[in-house]
Amino acid sequence: MRVILTIGSTSTAMIDGISAAGASPAMMAETPAADAEIIEYGQPIGTGLTPVSPSGCPTPAVVTRAVRTLEQFETLILDAGTAAGTAAPTVSVGEQPGNDIRDEVAVPDASGVFERARELGTQFPDDELLIAESIPGGTTTAQGVFRALGESYDVSSSLQSNPVDLKRDVVETGLRASDLETGDLAGSPLQAIQAMGDPVLAATTGLVTGALETETSVRLAGGTQMVAVAALVRHAGRTEPIQLATTAFVAADETADLQAAATDLDLALQVTDPEFDQSEHVVFDRYRAGEAKEGAGMGGALALAEESDSPMATVREQIIECYEKVIQHGA
Amino acid sequence: MRVILTIGSTSTAMIDGISAAGASPAMMAETPAADAEIIEYGQPIGTGLTPVSPSGCPTPAVVTRAVRTLEQFETLILDAGTAAGTAAPTVSVGEQPGNDIRDEVAVPDASGVFERARELGTQFPDDELLIAESIPGGTTTAQGVFRALGESYDVSSSLQSNPVDLKRDVVETGLRASDLETGDLAGSPLQAIQAMGDPVLAATTGLVTGALETETSVRLAGGTQMVAVAALVRHAGRTEPIQLATTAFVAADETADLQAAATDLDLALQVTDPEFDQSEHVVFDRYRAGEAKEGAGMGGALALAEESDSPMATVREQIIECYEKVIQHGA
Repeated sequence: MRVILTIGSTSTAMIDGISAAGASPAMMAETPAADAEIIEYGQPIGTGLTPVSPSGCPTPAVVTRAVRTLEQFETLILDAGTAAGTAAPTVSVGEQPGNDIRDEVAVPDASGVFERARELGTQFPDDELLIAESIPGGTTTAQGVFRALGESYDVSSSLQSNPVDLKRDVVETGLRASDLETGDLAGSPLQAIQAMGDPVLAATTGLVTGALETETSVRLAGGTQMVAVAALVRHAGRTEPIQLATTAFVAADETADLQAAATDLDLALQVTDPEFDQSEHVVFDRYRAGEAKEGAGMGGALALAEESDSPMATVREQIIECYEKVIQHGA
Repeated sequence: MRVILTIGSTSTAMIDGISAAGASPAMMAETPAADAEIIEYGQPIGTGLTPVSPSGCPTPAVVTRAVRTLEQFETLILDAGTAAGTAAPTVSVGEQPGNDIRDEVAVPDASGVFERARELGTQFPDDELLIAESIPGGTTTAQGVFRALGESYDVSSSLQSNPVDLKRDVVETGLRASDLETGDLAGSPLQAIQAMGDPVLAATTGLVTGALETETSVRLAGGTQMVAVAALVRHAGRTEPIQLATTAFVAADETADLQAAATDLDLALQVTDPEFDQSEHVVFDRYRAGEAKEGAGMGGALALAEESDSPMATVREQIIECYEKVIQHGA
């Protein structure tokens, strides 16, 4: 088993009010790089930045790191195209951040990124891949891809209050800019990513495709962005079983009906509740309020902890310990 | 604790008869890339190549991987400048392979590689770094650096029979090409690397320097190439304690007096014997005959196994298991 975090950037995240994956739009550019460093080293050693939301919610990468220290799973950071360099070791499958989906083309090299990731996906000796993402703005691009494919699912949000109207407007503008109507790219996943997606969607869809081709089990670790990956893979005609491991926070988000999408796309849904209400530590405050919810493999890592019978109390203690190390170092 | 494998290439390895780190000079170009893949994934997933010596001795990376599966230490592959790409995740501190040391300049960007690695070396949150190498031809460049620094130590060899005369000739030609006499670069480690070293020496010397600057403990994991790193660091004026963890095979090599060099350079020497004579499996045959001896962190990994009280019999079983997975995949 290997946990793969795919990192990337999209200019879509720079739209004011669209994402909570960074204290400001400028700092959001560093979030994927810092998430990768936290998972690999336990501290944001290169960026020097602890990703927090504007209200101070720490990145879910801290949760993934905490579980990694307990379970010692092997990791891989896959760079799909990021705006900021990382001090974490990476395999690169793309050089360019994605454009704003309101531009005509969102991911110019979607096929190249997909193909390099697909080839890598065929090569792992592991029985199972757990595939996660870190890309601010990623739920908006996911919604863009759903509409291009003609799927009516809605997406969740890293913000406490999902800016659904803003996302709808952005997606509609994006479709128009690409000269598309809803559903025009049903059955054409690569074109949907190119027009309305982001580099992480291109890379993870490639990885999953390669893994399924070689009979490697796939568990998507994330929320509605990972539902978009599943939709893309299904639109490519693949029918193999796929699991989706996410958090109770995403499952509870009423703006996105995760269960319906999972049923529709034939995903085995695995929801883990880290019981953050059992602790009063500040690291859990904004999560309890409904922020962040998921990302950087959080739901998948929690699922691994649950499967190995690590008590959630131990996981929470480890999260506190990791958080304290992270903020010691980060700005 | 983190194990860092620094990979790189030098054209010095292409000199006929100089190295056993590959079945042929052409295949040697792939050895560092494949070693990194074996340590990260358990198989040479991108190169498709299992590094073996001309007589079939499998790469010591298999030993490091075996211990990693037992001890679950965290790893980092540092790319100092390699001739062949790797599917392992890397942090890059150099883009160019090194030249043949018989050229005027061996490592054109020695200071750049050193400085980037030094900065990284200051950033790790780990208490201790275990620093290893994979670079075919690396004992010859090490000897070149010793002579440039005016140190009289001799180096070991990955070959059963150390080609000492050939190495001496190559080093003498190299000194002349750089317009140097023995000892001309005493106290000038970066110039010594630039004239007579390789990219891995530049990067590991930088890493060690950065780590020592920030009070991180350093354990060099390797044979006489790592003695060269220690000499370079001492010539830079650093006096902190440094450990050197190597195998009983290097310690037993009469062509290199490891103990004398360690005493002279104030290195705490740690020699681990994996007792390969206790098993008749083919994977150990060429090691018992005196080939390979060290490399890709083997001695350091064995030291970690010994410290955690893993019986060497368990380590050997794990080596056999890892070897079988590697050759299943590799050519």
